[in-house]
Amino acid sequence: MAQDPAIRTVAVVLFEGFTVLDAYGPIQAFSSCRWRQADGTQRRFFQTMTLGVRPGPVRSGDGPATVVDHAFDDAPPWDILVVPGGFGTRALVNDAAFLDRLGRASGRSAVTSTVCTGSALLARTGRLDGRPATSNKIAWDWVVQQGPRVRWQRRARWVDDGDMLTSSGVSAGIDMILALIARLNGRDMAVAAARNMEYVWNEDASNDPFA
Amino acid sequence: MAQDPAIRTVAVVLFEGFTVLDAYGPIQAFSSCRWRQADGTQRRFFQTMTLGVRPGPVRSGDGPATVVDHAFDDAPPWDILVVPGGFGTRALVNDAAFLDRLGRASGRSAVTSTVCTGSALLARTGRLDGRPATSNKIAWDWVVQQGPRVRWQRRARWVDDGDMLTSSGVSAGIDMILALIARLNGRDMAVAAARNMEYVWNEDASNDPFA
Repeated sequence: MAQDPAIRTVAVVLFEGFTVLDAYGPIQAFSSCRWRQADGTQRRFFQTMTLGVRPGPVRSGDGPATVVDHAFDDAPPWDILVVPGGFGTRALVNDAAFLDRLGRASGRSAVTSTVCTGSALLARTGRLDGRPATSNKIAWDWVVQQGPRVRWQRRARWVDDGDMLTSSGVSAGIDMILALIARLNGRDMAVAAARNMEYVWNEDASNDPFA
Repeated sequence: MAQDPAIRTVAVVLFEGFTVLDAYGPIQAFSSCRWRQADGTQRRFFQTMTLGVRPGPVRSGDGPATVVDHAFDDAPPWDILVVPGGFGTRALVNDAAFLDRLGRASGRSAVTSTVCTGSALLARTGRLDGRPATSNKIAWDWVVQQGPRVRWQRRARWVDDGDMLTSSGVSAGIDMILALIARLNGRDMAVAAARNMEYVWNEDASNDPFA
């Protein structure tokens, strides 16, 4: 399906202890962009692959393990990077080899997006320096310490800074990705994706019920 | 962690072509029931394992593969069963061996819950006969054909029939599981879990924005 130039590729970063909904909320939103065609088949607009230090299963912080499809350095090209958060980020902010891979992966992405404490990881690569960003509210004090030169915005469901999008905690990643879909493919497609997910989309980035 | 009698075990059924948020929304809700204890460690109240026809990776309908921890017949005991939906259900409603395993797994569960077209699978086992249930709205006509003796309720975010809970599409599974958590562990814990997920919980089963 990669042959269709209208299909964008999403690469989701996985690591031990990632939070499942941080990754799977965005994956579901992208996957829900599909329309039934006249011949009965589904037309898709995004495809997802998973990235990690090495291929194979990675245990989430919530029980189940997800398979990493490609090592960072051996992956085919992609358009959009998604970086989840989770308790695993507590160790990774001090893992120079991981941060180097993540920073280069972000450099190869047309758009980089983070969910929850994923912004702490991206901050540690330096790629958020001087830019507005947000994160999870419960871990806020720890996150902002990871990026002293980031212009952190506490009250925000998500922050859209063009090629860098950062969301608040867990479920906020769904709202952010639907907004990205609206920008890339039009609001009608984002609304259709939300309906396919039976999800009540919070369309207003400044409406943060948890700040 | 299984030694703590206050921890319930959740078994999530996986199959080729499952919808990721149908499974991971409930997994996240259960996993978000955690409190920080005086010694700084997290206390959890639910643990999750995955069930399938055989152990190993199963490809979702949305790209990534999740690892099945246990085959149906070799799994340790559990309390709560979660059955997701997805395009994979279209073949499985005619797979007698799978339906036999699913029906017996439901029989071993204190509570069986389905998300989206997962209710079509459970209906095909006969375990919903004579009972109220709901499902995804987009696939509604197909689902109800799978259970002619089920008392289908179209307008419902979810239906709670005691030991059988069925939800509407995809995201509705999160609302249903938070309601189950409230019943089992008190509303305060469900509210805390929703806050940990930064999720705006729809607490009213009759409030179905997509019917």
